[in-house]
Amino acid sequence: MKHIADSTVRRLSVYLRYLEEHAARGHATTSSEDLAHYAGTTSAQVRKDLSFFGSFGTRGLGYSIAELTAKLQDILGLGREWKVVIVGAGKIGSALSTYRGFAQRGFRVIAVYDNDPRKIGSPWDGQVVRSIDALEADTARERPDIAVLAIPADDAQPEVDRIVRAGIAAILNFAPAQVQVPPGVTLKNVNMAMELEGLSYALRNRD
Amino acid sequence: MKHIADSTVRRLSVYLRYLEEHAARGHATTSSEDLAHYAGTTSAQVRKDLSFFGSFGTRGLGYSIAELTAKLQDILGLGREWKVVIVGAGKIGSALSTYRGFAQRGFRVIAVYDNDPRKIGSPWDGQVVRSIDALEADTARERPDIAVLAIPADDAQPEVDRIVRAGIAAILNFAPAQVQVPPGVTLKNVNMAMELEGLSYALRNRD
Repeated sequence: MKHIADSTVRRLSVYLRYLEEHAARGHATTSSEDLAHYAGTTSAQVRKDLSFFGSFGTRGLGYSIAELTAKLQDILGLGREWKVVIVGAGKIGSALSTYRGFAQRGFRVIAVYDNDPRKIGSPWDGQVVRSIDALEADTARERPDIAVLAIPADDAQPEVDRIVRAGIAAILNFAPAQVQVPPGVTLKNVNMAMELEGLSYALRNRD
Repeated sequence: MKHIADSTVRRLSVYLRYLEEHAARGHATTSSEDLAHYAGTTSAQVRKDLSFFGSFGTRGLGYSIAELTAKLQDILGLGREWKVVIVGAGKIGSALSTYRGFAQRGFRVIAVYDNDPRKIGSPWDGQVVRSIDALEADTARERPDIAVLAIPADDAQPEVDRIVRAGIAAILNFAPAQVQVPPGVTLKNVNMAMELEGLSYALRNRD
């Protein structure tokens, strides 16, 4: 499969949300125009995004919601369960692990780690906080797919290196730091301060 | 000023982080190559991004960290305090309001709102949870700049409409829903499930 841009994958997620909402309202078909309106893009873009993955829809009739939903779920890897570990037993990790949409889409938290002796061994959202020192051995045994790095420290690189060394190939990083991963490891950054700076930039530069 | 892409603004935030870290290590100058390496881009891109905002740096000598830091802070609107209200007294809002980088950059939480009678009136991270019904009157008096929408509900549009009606012109949306805002209101979405889908996509489609 050719390389698909992150922005395309993101729009596929948005389309999937629309299909689910639209189906819940009792509809069976939809159009590229409706998808475009919901996603804030053009119908040409919708058709182009979907064309990467095969042929969908019928001219004049639109898309079958059931068919397109199943296809998008498959493309996005949502047809199975993904095992997630959270590194950092704080508020962000807790918000994520109790987030309804998280489990609904097949992301199952199997462990939470911390390096704080006061937290290790304590109950935490249905888990017991484990020592970060156990990460490598646990990973070899439990084979998690995704690590969520939810630590406040700016210096997140050593934790990322540890996650990579343990053999986890996908990382969602909430730590406010740029971190590097080797080829073959997928990294997504969620930097809340940076999102806010996007807003302050807009406020500062409005006419 | 011409329209600057979101991706450019985001890189400016990354450059600023690099400058701060680099200054903390005792350096006084840097280069577009160093900035590019940190931000995962090219030095040509760095020079192009900065050229939108004037002329920086000296060929062969690089950039003065102090000068470029001050300029980026100004561009990003970080030279002042921004008043933030949080709508939704849950874990995400709490993670944000106690997030160190948040206050450091001038984002000050002045109020938190909820619609749950069990939460209204309770202490919450140095605030007392207010009724969402007070949003309009409070906003007229306290003039917040930014609203963070941190509710779990999929149906976030009515809350967004309420924030817009109250007169707040910038919204950071953590609700897992596509929402619409009128022209003149800036919206940023942080959808954690969508970030995870970017990871599951990558895991699903790896060779």
